[in-house]
Amino acid sequence: MKPVVFITAGDPLGIGPEVTVKALKSPLVQHACSPIVIGEPCSLFRAGFSDRLARLISMDTCECLQDAPHGPTEAGGLSSFKSVELACKLALRTHCPLVTAPISKQSWSLAHIPYVGHTELLRERAGKEGLMMFVSGPIRCALVSEHFAISDLPHILTRSRVSQAARHFAQALQRLGVKHPHIAFCALNPHAGDNGKFGTEEHSVIEPVIRAMRRKGICAEGPFPADSIWAAHAHGKYDGLLCMYHDQALLGLKLAAREPIVHVTAGLKFLRTSPTHGTAFDIAGKNKANAQSMTAAILFAAARAKCPEI
Amino acid sequence: MKPVVFITAGDPLGIGPEVTVKALKSPLVQHACSPIVIGEPCSLFRAGFSDRLARLISMDTCECLQDAPHGPTEAGGLSSFKSVELACKLALRTHCPLVTAPISKQSWSLAHIPYVGHTELLRERAGKEGLMMFVSGPIRCALVSEHFAISDLPHILTRSRVSQAARHFAQALQRLGVKHPHIAFCALNPHAGDNGKFGTEEHSVIEPVIRAMRRKGICAEGPFPADSIWAAHAHGKYDGLLCMYHDQALLGLKLAAREPIVHVTAGLKFLRTSPTHGTAFDIAGKNKANAQSMTAAILFAAARAKCPEI
Repeated sequence: MKPVVFITAGDPLGIGPEVTVKALKSPLVQHACSPIVIGEPCSLFRAGFSDRLARLISMDTCECLQDAPHGPTEAGGLSSFKSVELACKLALRTHCPLVTAPISKQSWSLAHIPYVGHTELLRERAGKEGLMMFVSGPIRCALVSEHFAISDLPHILTRSRVSQAARHFAQALQRLGVKHPHIAFCALNPHAGDNGKFGTEEHSVIEPVIRAMRRKGICAEGPFPADSIWAAHAHGKYDGLLCMYHDQALLGLKLAAREPIVHVTAGLKFLRTSPTHGTAFDIAGKNKANAQSMTAAILFAAARAKCPEI
Repeated sequence: MKPVVFITAGDPLGIGPEVTVKALKSPLVQHACSPIVIGEPCSLFRAGFSDRLARLISMDTCECLQDAPHGPTEAGGLSSFKSVELACKLALRTHCPLVTAPISKQSWSLAHIPYVGHTELLRERAGKEGLMMFVSGPIRCALVSEHFAISDLPHILTRSRVSQAARHFAQALQRLGVKHPHIAFCALNPHAGDNGKFGTEEHSVIEPVIRAMRRKGICAEGPFPADSIWAAHAHGKYDGLLCMYHDQALLGLKLAAREPIVHVTAGLKFLRTSPTHGTAFDIAGKNKANAQSMTAAILFAAARAKCPEI
């Protein structure tokens, strides 16, 4: 029996429905799982959806979306939010994985949704300590901090936050099949602070966490200067790279990746993946969207699905 | 007549003498310039130097270096400092370019040299506004700030500092032959601050500089999220990328570079280049050092030398 994978089609006015349908048409996806799509039906059918591709759970059709221009709207926000909310409930009950096509944070805000985006909603409903992680073939990295201004980093990066991320990362790598994960820690400052000359967080925050991880038997190394360790990680020296902030992870990843990048939220009560692009309103409805990342996100989830057939 | 290029051999106990000699043995280097090497003679001759390779200006031989182990020393610091000091004087008088093999900041500190490293010395003696810039084939980037802790960035990145770096970068690109340089500016914060949600420096600091540059006829664009703009820059979309901080530049550059990286200090009274590695004391004296970056630094300087034959 093929595993069930829940897929939300994202904002109906973005490229979500298009990449969902394109991914579902891939024989690899059809071979790997029994997909259940949750989304706004008009946008899906406009993008070429048919019942042969997946089971569909339709969210309330909102008439006003029929001729709406592609962009952030209250209706799009509400519809995509409801899809994710329902999918989250279903995934919690069944332990099947969830793949989410992109929503628009602006649309959610217009619809007065009390969450910034997927991650915040999923953290509240399915596990507080969700860890943002990315996988591109053998390259895996995770983020200690996500959407914060650079000026906030010094007080955001506490030992407890680094430690929590490191612990979840090690667990996630083990669940992905790496029995004894070898994790490299990025430094925060250039040249890893050069013995405290340019910053002290390496010594006061990151090193104690590395020592604690080692005491627990995890093979943790660093903190390494981010520029040199990314080059080593790109060549497969470590099972995972723990990055201190958003651009440290994403800048390296986007240049080093040789395979489509999958965004994984680890540490939830079910596996959640998503493509790495946004709603791309500018090309929505033009059949120009590339579904590689969405396809990779579904295949990744399907390969690791441990849920009963429903 | 071939142009003269001054070359300092760096710390005599590091890999500087070895990469200098290896680079000088390259037929490309011999064809491109008349090299004048300034350094400690014992270490150079031990590394295979001969008078056929270059003219040599010997710095005081320090007997105690003969059997010294490879590592940071007061003697190595003093000798390498004197070489750079003399080379700087010669380059200032002749306008010939200077290529510097790596010194050890720790050795300079042990020798009580009142400069942290090359850049600080050169800025004081040859032009206050030296700009740290890197070139790897068509990929060029420059740094607004260099060796600072991440926690210092918010107050270091002022409009005047970004503006000064942008101006020097545009000039440097023009001197490198790009008539109308197209410069992309990196944002400081993730997603370029996402309209002020994660930081305001894009709006308050970087955008005004971009507008001012445009008013002066420079094709300036941004600020762009660093992760996505590096991927575009790696594919040759811009003539230069102005990065706000050290790792933003070096992380991208080391992953994107397909040709040896040359470090260029722009804005001085002469052209100065150097390889991108350090003294590598751990492999010094073992004939293991790779001279690609040193060779590229010399060839880059030679190709742009505009000095009278001396």
